Amino acid sequence: MAEPQTAAPPVASHRVTDSLVHKQKLIESALDAYTQFPSECPQVLRDAVRYSLLVPGKRLRPMLVMLAAEACGGSVEHAVPAACAAEMVHTYSLILDELPWMDDDDTRRGRPTTHKKYGDAVAILAGDALLALAFEVLARDVQPAEIAAGCCATLAAACGATALVGGQCDDVRAGISSGSKEMLESIHNRKTGALFLASLRLGALVAGATPEQHSALQEFGSHLGLAFQITDDLLDHDEDRRGTGGKRKGDRGKLTFPNLIGVDQSRRDVEQLVASSLEALEGFGPQARSLRALARFVSDRL
Amino acid sequence: MAEPQTAAPPVASHRVTDSLVHKQKLIESALDAYTQFPSECPQVLRDAVRYSLLVPGKRLRPMLVMLAAEACGGSVEHAVPAACAAEMVHTYSLILDELPWMDDDDTRRGRPTTHKKYGDAVAILAGDALLALAFEVLARDVQPAEIAAGCCATLAAACGATALVGGQCDDVRAGISSGSKEMLESIHNRKTGALFLASLRLGALVAGATPEQHSALQEFGSHLGLAFQITDDLLDHDEDRRGTGGKRKGDRGKLTFPNLIGVDQSRRDVEQLVASSLEALEGFGPQARSLRALARFVSDRL
Repeated sequence: MAEPQTAAPPVASHRVTDSLVHKQKLIESALDAYTQFPSECPQVLRDAVRYSLLVPGKRLRPMLVMLAAEACGGSVEHAVPAACAAEMVHTYSLILDELPWMDDDDTRRGRPTTHKKYGDAVAILAGDALLALAFEVLARDVQPAEIAAGCCATLAAACGATALVGGQCDDVRAGISSGSKEMLESIHNRKTGALFLASLRLGALVAGATPEQHSALQEFGSHLGLAFQITDDLLDHDEDRRGTGGKRKGDRGKLTFPNLIGVDQSRRDVEQLVASSLEALEGFGPQARSLRALARFVSDRL
Repeated sequence: MAEPQTAAPPVASHRVTDSLVHKQKLIESALDAYTQFPSECPQVLRDAVRYSLLVPGKRLRPMLVMLAAEACGGSVEHAVPAACAAEMVHTYSLILDELPWMDDDDTRRGRPTTHKKYGDAVAILAGDALLALAFEVLARDVQPAEIAAGCCATLAAACGATALVGGQCDDVRAGISSGSKEMLESIHNRKTGALFLASLRLGALVAGATPEQHSALQEFGSHLGLAFQITDDLLDHDEDRRGTGGKRKGDRGKLTFPNLIGVDQSRRDVEQLVASSLEALEGFGPQARSLRALARFVSDRL
């Protein structure tokens, strides 16, 4: 049953906000607990992992896991391990992205990046520790085992040579230079989109979603992931024009949507993509309320 | 029923050798097939992954997986995905170990190391692609799913902050300097031993081993892993004395067993550890013949 696409009344908005805050608390507390490593973990490694992971943020990917589970009628609490795994992989990808041989960023959100604070070797190892931990958490804490194996396969495929790592590789090598819209979308689909889709799929898996729900969520995610990336490019573009210094080193002069298709067309694309993502959720009932709010949040950032 | 521990007659030796060659062929062919990535994988990344993984080698860890499965009465063919996953993680750890901020090695087995041939960024990404692929293969190709989830949890724990990555971190930071035998053993247990034990456990899991078999294999592996590491140190020490150039850059002046306890005591330790590893297999029948031969091979390298 489709929920009307009109703006929700204030009361419902409060409910959505309260429910997002509750979910965020669940995630923060679980991420903290998961990185209390026993003493076989060197202190500096524990510090670097926690420094990178426990920074305040939107927690967008874990939220996608939990809201997808909720939309499919599953329990939000049961989705916590999978939500944490998605955030661990995202943090690993940020550490990777910031390295001197990748984007060479000195700061993120006003703090030194992991490699600037702990050195290159420890940063690489902290990223790898997070990647391994993501699979450990999924394999051990998602129940039943059949779902756990499906979650591991989903996340591994999203991390691998044809997805995150492959997109990163093309991105590093594409460098400043020219490129087509197809190449830019292909890089984003692998670097950002794959983990978006995997997060939604993890949520659907732990909720025991129907094939129709799985496929609707994948359509939702493919539109939303691209909308999110174009929005990021637009925000960077604005900061760059205003000279507010938000631009990170490695992104300077890189191929972006505003550079390639212009600011106005980029904005129109975001609106259209968010609308298409919402259409994909038409078959879901009011349980998808928060997921719809999350999609609107993407264009609201502009 | 225990098999006599005396030297096997020539006929049995041939059988063991033939059987090892057959297993090695299964592994080589599966590793080749697993790294034929579709076109979303950049060519340079595919090349770097295959360059690192498909080099002729002992394939010791996949052999441990397959021989452990065989010792527990399982099918060697069913153990192939898990065996490949162990080798992928091992290769990832070698790429990591060779990086400029780790051991800074230029060559391995007479060829340029991955980062020397493909650059630091692609080497790091190739390692990460292998790590992700290991979990994808386990989660997707090990059957039933309950065993697959157990395999993922086992391998992830062996890779993580309290094992491989933690040992690597302490190793980098210990540097040239002094240290106790306990610290050296603790680093080896995490850097090398954890993957040895995980390989045996993967084999036992896919074979549906009894708790007694699991625990005997873990005892076997803890002795054998350390014996293997001391042997490696001794071989490096010999090459170093003979000036045959086998010594790699990052290992120069590092804490090793011959430096710490002397060559003679190191040799005695290896003999004792191999003997203890064989004792741990006493409860296994003739199906453990190849696993015993593998243990003897460790001290035969000296």
